[in-house]
Amino acid sequence: MKTVNIALLGCGSVGGGLVSLLRDQHEQIRRRCRVDLRLRKILVRDSERIREGVDQTLLTDDPEEVIESADLVIELLGGLEPARTMIRNALVESRNVVTANKRLLAVAGTDLHDLASVHRVRIGYEASVCGAIPIIRILRSHVNCLDVTQICGIVNGTTNYILTRMAEDSSTFAESLEEAQRLGFAEADPTLDVGGIDAAHKLKILAELAFDQRVCLDDVAVTGIEAIDGSDIESARRRGKVIRHVARAQRRGDRIEMSVAPEELPRDHPFAAVRGEENAILVCAAGAGEIFLRGKGAGSLPSASAVLGDVCDVATSN
Amino acid sequence: MKTVNIALLGCGSVGGGLVSLLRDQHEQIRRRCRVDLRLRKILVRDSERIREGVDQTLLTDDPEEVIESADLVIELLGGLEPARTMIRNALVESRNVVTANKRLLAVAGTDLHDLASVHRVRIGYEASVCGAIPIIRILRSHVNCLDVTQICGIVNGTTNYILTRMAEDSSTFAESLEEAQRLGFAEADPTLDVGGIDAAHKLKILAELAFDQRVCLDDVAVTGIEAIDGSDIESARRRGKVIRHVARAQRRGDRIEMSVAPEELPRDHPFAAVRGEENAILVCAAGAGEIFLRGKGAGSLPSASAVLGDVCDVATSN
Repeated sequence: MKTVNIALLGCGSVGGGLVSLLRDQHEQIRRRCRVDLRLRKILVRDSERIREGVDQTLLTDDPEEVIESADLVIELLGGLEPARTMIRNALVESRNVVTANKRLLAVAGTDLHDLASVHRVRIGYEASVCGAIPIIRILRSHVNCLDVTQICGIVNGTTNYILTRMAEDSSTFAESLEEAQRLGFAEADPTLDVGGIDAAHKLKILAELAFDQRVCLDDVAVTGIEAIDGSDIESARRRGKVIRHVARAQRRGDRIEMSVAPEELPRDHPFAAVRGEENAILVCAAGAGEIFLRGKGAGSLPSASAVLGDVCDVATSN
Repeated sequence: MKTVNIALLGCGSVGGGLVSLLRDQHEQIRRRCRVDLRLRKILVRDSERIREGVDQTLLTDDPEEVIESADLVIELLGGLEPARTMIRNALVESRNVVTANKRLLAVAGTDLHDLASVHRVRIGYEASVCGAIPIIRILRSHVNCLDVTQICGIVNGTTNYILTRMAEDSSTFAESLEEAQRLGFAEADPTLDVGGIDAAHKLKILAELAFDQRVCLDDVAVTGIEAIDGSDIESARRRGKVIRHVARAQRRGDRIEMSVAPEELPRDHPFAAVRGEENAILVCAAGAGEIFLRGKGAGSLPSASAVLGDVCDVATSN
């Protein structure tokens, strides 16, 4: 059986979830994927701190040591640097990479994909968009042979949680945001989420895959949900509508139109039933028609499960 | 660029849809999948009959001629024979196979998969369950590394169409069935559909993939929808419920419990919004949580799109 040595960069919420899945699913992965995944090193800022369920001897704060230990590098640091440099180094040394870093992919995805192609290695990034929902996989394979006409989704759990609370408990925007932060759905600095920038990053990743062409982040018309208040939600409700924060990309001739904005949707729209921190995606492709997907868009284990799926794919593919 | 020669067995509704997709998507498939798919022969009963959009010179009624023309054989004949013998012959001669034949897979899937494994070729069967919904792909890859605890779905468009009509138009069972036949959703002999046998076939295919073990068709407790009448639906509605025909498989210790039966579901259950001939699937896997999928479960182009996705996968994989 093939053994694949894994280095993990970052051991926060998703990293911790991945460590536990790698342990719990080790035998199943050996049996079903016929690969022996060995976690060799974990890069952390403080290698002295005890992390529950994590083997202390794997921790290191030395970036070079961690990359050298691996055939496959999993990047869960988030943000642009040092993630970008470490992924580039791994690719240049012909190591496969799996990442959940939507911001980095939105900003530097083309460069990283080109580098992977030159060095004949792969980048898996299912976990970068919509957590446990396998939308990247579906765009890369199932509908890859079809003309996609539109893709839209609820791709940010924080804004959906806030809008749901405001509609169902009559909470204010501020109260709902605070609750989301308390529950760990929202970042300490929620600007990227509530302002729609995080959703725009994800939309760029989806649109480039769906339409097989480069798109520009600046071409996404972004409106956040900061200006939504109780009266907007109540007014929508009176007209049989619900407000959802929707990321949308569609082909218009040669152009790809992209927006992230609060939209009023009819109560029987599939997105209307997507509540709390859930995510959902609707893809329209020639022949297939509409395919709707819904699931956990974030969180330790859901995101880690998508990372693990990529790891198994990449580990068994070459 | 690699050229893959294709033989098509059967040119009915799905076959005709596939011929048009192979033509319309030919350039996109060359560009995105880097493979040149060439349809070489089509096996039909009457090779003299004109079929709109189908090149008459490809038609033949000679089974040997058609198989010999191909690297990849697409079986869309349906039923057990001659489909089984022709697929076996193709596999033994190391030709890849793509099929939409759920009945054959439910009855003889193990034998065919073993044969494919011995001859180092692949069988694609996404179109055998839930048309355009990529559930086979997701079970084979995305959640393959996770413990699946349950999979359930609305996997038969005919029974869902009938139940929807009965609830929304107060039509009788007989009127709704007749309407489904008129629209082409239901077979001339609807016994396999309304009796739940077709759903049981699909459930067996899903359960074996999800739980990675053989299950027996006889172990599916099957109840059709023939006994459902307007008063059942009305009574459910008064209690805030809807009736759906649900196929369900779940792990209980070492056993897999399987059933196909009408179930009363709360109005906010994801299946309650699945109307008409649509299909839907809910998979629960450790870590990922619930993943819900919904889309066109049958019909010429939706089923053909799933066949085409498999064809591209298989054609590019070896």
